[in-house]
Amino acid sequence: MTYCVAMRLEAGLLFASDSRTNAGVDHIATFRKMSVFEQPGERLIVLLSAGNLATTQSVISLLTQRLKGQEEHLFKCPSMYDVAELVGRTVKEVVARDADAQSLGQGVDFGGNFIVGGQIRGEAPRLFHVYAQGNFIEACEDTPYFQIGESKYGKPIIDRVIKPKTSLKEAAKCTLISFDSTIRSNLSVGLPIDMLLYKTDSFAPADPHRITADDPYFNKLRRGWGEGLRKTFEKLPDEDWFNK
Amino acid sequence: MTYCVAMRLEAGLLFASDSRTNAGVDHIATFRKMSVFEQPGERLIVLLSAGNLATTQSVISLLTQRLKGQEEHLFKCPSMYDVAELVGRTVKEVVARDADAQSLGQGVDFGGNFIVGGQIRGEAPRLFHVYAQGNFIEACEDTPYFQIGESKYGKPIIDRVIKPKTSLKEAAKCTLISFDSTIRSNLSVGLPIDMLLYKTDSFAPADPHRITADDPYFNKLRRGWGEGLRKTFEKLPDEDWFNK
Repeated sequence: MTYCVAMRLEAGLLFASDSRTNAGVDHIATFRKMSVFEQPGERLIVLLSAGNLATTQSVISLLTQRLKGQEEHLFKCPSMYDVAELVGRTVKEVVARDADAQSLGQGVDFGGNFIVGGQIRGEAPRLFHVYAQGNFIEACEDTPYFQIGESKYGKPIIDRVIKPKTSLKEAAKCTLISFDSTIRSNLSVGLPIDMLLYKTDSFAPADPHRITADDPYFNKLRRGWGEGLRKTFEKLPDEDWFNK
Repeated sequence: MTYCVAMRLEAGLLFASDSRTNAGVDHIATFRKMSVFEQPGERLIVLLSAGNLATTQSVISLLTQRLKGQEEHLFKCPSMYDVAELVGRTVKEVVARDADAQSLGQGVDFGGNFIVGGQIRGEAPRLFHVYAQGNFIEACEDTPYFQIGESKYGKPIIDRVIKPKTSLKEAAKCTLISFDSTIRSNLSVGLPIDMLLYKTDSFAPADPHRITADDPYFNKLRRGWGEGLRKTFEKLPDEDWFNK
């Protein structure tokens, strides 16, 4: 499985993915389940993927190799909306190619999900969730984040903390705690975590961070959060259920 | 959907279920997704149910009406193992009766899950998870709890707190926090919560509690937990990601 989360905040964008299985291919600063397509000064596009690895790898490969061709590609798209549409169309193309009666009869799920976000000069940063069916939704004020994969364990802390005005530092802290909760409760999600923070209108080169098991900050957070939860729990009052 | 959790601790048993949809029938102290079958002084049997409501209701109805018949029934079973086996057999009986080619072609899932626990004189308290297929597993030292339904949101806090030596008071507190996290993140799980605590070897009459939206203790917990999480979160250090 996989756990990916992305946020569209006023301060910028945050992307994070685990890496227990690898879905990315190494091309144009692409790594693990996070793929980065960028023209510094002009556009940054980040894709996070979950689902059938053959499908998501093929989508990234096709998007990558078409950057050099004549067809429409990620660096030609005039808006992030068009980027999301292109990713959705590529998902459908791959599934249509791979999923036939024979393989479907074997119960294979060819679906792949993507979170697609970034900024193209002339637009504000935008964030989309592209479904396995190729259609997509966009993050807004009310719902500034998307999760794909094993999303439930780590959702409560995000629901409590993340608002459009949350800073990138706080969002990163919340994201790492969300990953910690997920990793503790679900073996299919594992370290390292890939995280990328992007400041609105910076168009700076992508500077992804890889958070491994011996990352000092992540370990400080895990320990501090665990201790804080235990202390909070202990301080909460007890009820005398048998004499109520 | 549904969220139910049950724990087998040294101090006793805990059962809790939400009630956004009702799966119980009113007979022999049966209510909502929690059904209680008891002979005070002799045996207590509690069932929590999730899944297809027609299936789980039928299972409870059959188990209830057979208490007066000649067939094997819950008050005749010599052990909790036999109780779990009887519940599993009844699930299979109902699914075999209701699920035919026509309904399966319509994509209906007839499955129903049960958590079955209690104590019969002569045995220690025991706890089982009965699957939709009728087979079942038993809680042990290493895994002293089971969840059914929307289990993921509320699992991290249980994983952090619950050990076999946890007291019933603490387990109840942890359970209510687990429900709070689930209810905040998932609309399909809702109040009131039914909770039943049973002290090992007490064989006392079941004394279930119904926790509604205006329950003072639950509200104190929700508030205290939310504030504690926020304070813990704020106290955790920030990282300077852009100058790392």
